[in-house]
Amino acid sequence: MEIKGFSFAGICAGIKKDVTKEDLGIIVCDEAVAAAGLFTRNQVKAAPVMLSQKTLETGQCRAVLVNSGNANCFTGQQGLSDARKCIEMAARTFDVPEDQIAVASTGVIGAPLPMDKFTAGIPSLSKHLGNSREHAEAFSRSILTTDTCTKTVEIKIDVKGHTISMMGIAKGSGMIRPDMATMLAFVVTDACVAASDLKAALVRANEQSFSRITVDGDTSTNDTLICMASGKVGEPLQGDDLGKFQEILTQTCAELAKMVARDGEGATKLVHLIVQGAVSPEDALEVAQTIAHSSLVKTAVFGEDPNWGRITAAAGRADARVEQDKMDLFFGKVPLVIHGQWQGKDREVEAARIMKEEKISITLDLNLGDGCDEFWFCDFSKEYVSINADYRS
Amino acid sequence: MEIKGFSFAGICAGIKKDVTKEDLGIIVCDEAVAAAGLFTRNQVKAAPVMLSQKTLETGQCRAVLVNSGNANCFTGQQGLSDARKCIEMAARTFDVPEDQIAVASTGVIGAPLPMDKFTAGIPSLSKHLGNSREHAEAFSRSILTTDTCTKTVEIKIDVKGHTISMMGIAKGSGMIRPDMATMLAFVVTDACVAASDLKAALVRANEQSFSRITVDGDTSTNDTLICMASGKVGEPLQGDDLGKFQEILTQTCAELAKMVARDGEGATKLVHLIVQGAVSPEDALEVAQTIAHSSLVKTAVFGEDPNWGRITAAAGRADARVEQDKMDLFFGKVPLVIHGQWQGKDREVEAARIMKEEKISITLDLNLGDGCDEFWFCDFSKEYVSINADYRS
Repeated sequence: MEIKGFSFAGICAGIKKDVTKEDLGIIVCDEAVAAAGLFTRNQVKAAPVMLSQKTLETGQCRAVLVNSGNANCFTGQQGLSDARKCIEMAARTFDVPEDQIAVASTGVIGAPLPMDKFTAGIPSLSKHLGNSREHAEAFSRSILTTDTCTKTVEIKIDVKGHTISMMGIAKGSGMIRPDMATMLAFVVTDACVAASDLKAALVRANEQSFSRITVDGDTSTNDTLICMASGKVGEPLQGDDLGKFQEILTQTCAELAKMVARDGEGATKLVHLIVQGAVSPEDALEVAQTIAHSSLVKTAVFGEDPNWGRITAAAGRADARVEQDKMDLFFGKVPLVIHGQWQGKDREVEAARIMKEEKISITLDLNLGDGCDEFWFCDFSKEYVSINADYRS
Repeated sequence: MEIKGFSFAGICAGIKKDVTKEDLGIIVCDEAVAAAGLFTRNQVKAAPVMLSQKTLETGQCRAVLVNSGNANCFTGQQGLSDARKCIEMAARTFDVPEDQIAVASTGVIGAPLPMDKFTAGIPSLSKHLGNSREHAEAFSRSILTTDTCTKTVEIKIDVKGHTISMMGIAKGSGMIRPDMATMLAFVVTDACVAASDLKAALVRANEQSFSRITVDGDTSTNDTLICMASGKVGEPLQGDDLGKFQEILTQTCAELAKMVARDGEGATKLVHLIVQGAVSPEDALEVAQTIAHSSLVKTAVFGEDPNWGRITAAAGRADARVEQDKMDLFFGKVPLVIHGQWQGKDREVEAARIMKEEKISITLDLNLGDGCDEFWFCDFSKEYVSINADYRS
């Protein structure tokens, strides 16, 4: 699918250890487009995050340069200076003003950027630039780290006789925690949206997507979510039409978020957790987060064990009101606990069958009020430990 | 070591799947003694916790009945009624008032207590009761679950010509998080301490021991810490003497806490984390907790990788003031990061050598103020995942 106004490239620049893998990519806009960005809330921010925040503050963007294999984080003044040099090279290569270029990096923390790879790679990107699906796919591969697959979502809607297209591209897959944007994600659309509307829509979409997933509870130093709207199709969106745009933006981000959670490091399953009946929506979210982050719950999911005791115990330590004698807990539609009472062996066998599936839905009803929220998380496997014990070696 | 005024027993009652393992134990006092208890802050509390809280509110205790293999948690009215029956049986067997008996259970959540095992086991305990080291050891084995070893501390001090003895016995080893008491731990002493002084001393000791360790960040439903003082030796402690008592109580709890952390499920290493230079002690604790709970830090420790980027990134997401350009990070005494700058390959090699040790000290200096605190945690291994994926099967 082509999104009018955007070109993509992704190449092997030798930044990753495995030189057969793409590790340098770019999105170039035909002209300056409306753009919005959300970034990590970690106080330790990577150099590219600091620079991209400035670029996106203008509400405009012409290009986003991304590399994997090196996060350019905790690299001090050298890191900032290196990131600026990358921007200068991209500006020269693509004839774009420096202050309209955002940068994003992902990979190992603390090592300096291998600048020789960028010096050779950035000019080479221009030879691989194009607006076909293949070009977008090459870009989507270039941003991956321990991801096992690319993550791309495409949506079209009709608005007043015009077909608006949207494409989202993301990468995970460790250090994923719902403190705002949670990894690298880029959404491009040919819709015509004012920069301020775009920012508001992105904040709302993020709230219902990347802020509702967790892999391991760690917040990355490099989390970046950027949305760009080229305005090539249709009239400036307002009112109900803007509402439709919000819907597809939220849908795009939610689909990407679920892909990120499912492809969490070492993950074998995706759990959709619904908490309802809380005293307030805030309480529901707090309970959902606490359960989703519990190592004991996540290892039980890996073991395909409907270990309801760990789920209710995690709920009990959440900073929210719960009463153990009121809780109902469902695996899929199987009520394994009703009013705090285990419903017996037969139900347990049914719940165990649900746990064998790859996508599992778990619902906890606190029966205290109307507050509800939801969360997506993956299981915690031996493979997660292997990946992260040996990540740098 | 004998602690005057206390007898112990531990037997195989068949509550655990492995019938060759002790799973029922008791501590009996010659007469009612001063006692204090601290319990889980989880809102989901096991039945024995609810009953023991009442017993300990009186400041007195005559016996503590403990079983492993079944937590008697999330068992509703049945669980409370079963726990009461256990108390009745213990009262009859040992001729002790029911309201002076505390109970503690640890093991699987949600399953009803196998009452037939208690009916046979509790009378049998009386035949194995005694005050020798062997009796205390049998008790210490009877409270274990996935622990790989018993955890016992013995300390003696002289106060005004009298030798006061103290013995602490604890078990871990999953669901360990520092929200107050963090597992089962029992401390007995022959010192003479008023109940109110004992409670105050226990709160302080807990704060510097069990509240400073983590295994997996989950708070158990059954956490129980009970201290009993028989008053058989010396005069009632006051002033400086009470201060000395506080010291050995804190030391006993701290030693037990470190043993629990080191024997965390699947753990291969114990990390002593010191955070100093924080704006406040609260900030130091918050940073220390966040690092100690990070799955990425814990898997890196398992991989013997001095992955300082993950430590500083975890500090950055803590709800405390940090500045990346001010942080110093030491592995042992090796300064791997100074003012946010990586100190190079040679230092990294030295730090990697430190990581190969079984006990590792890591110091993070935020260089912002005088606040400091410390934490103990274990690594996160494949074995942890194995243990907890298959726990119930």
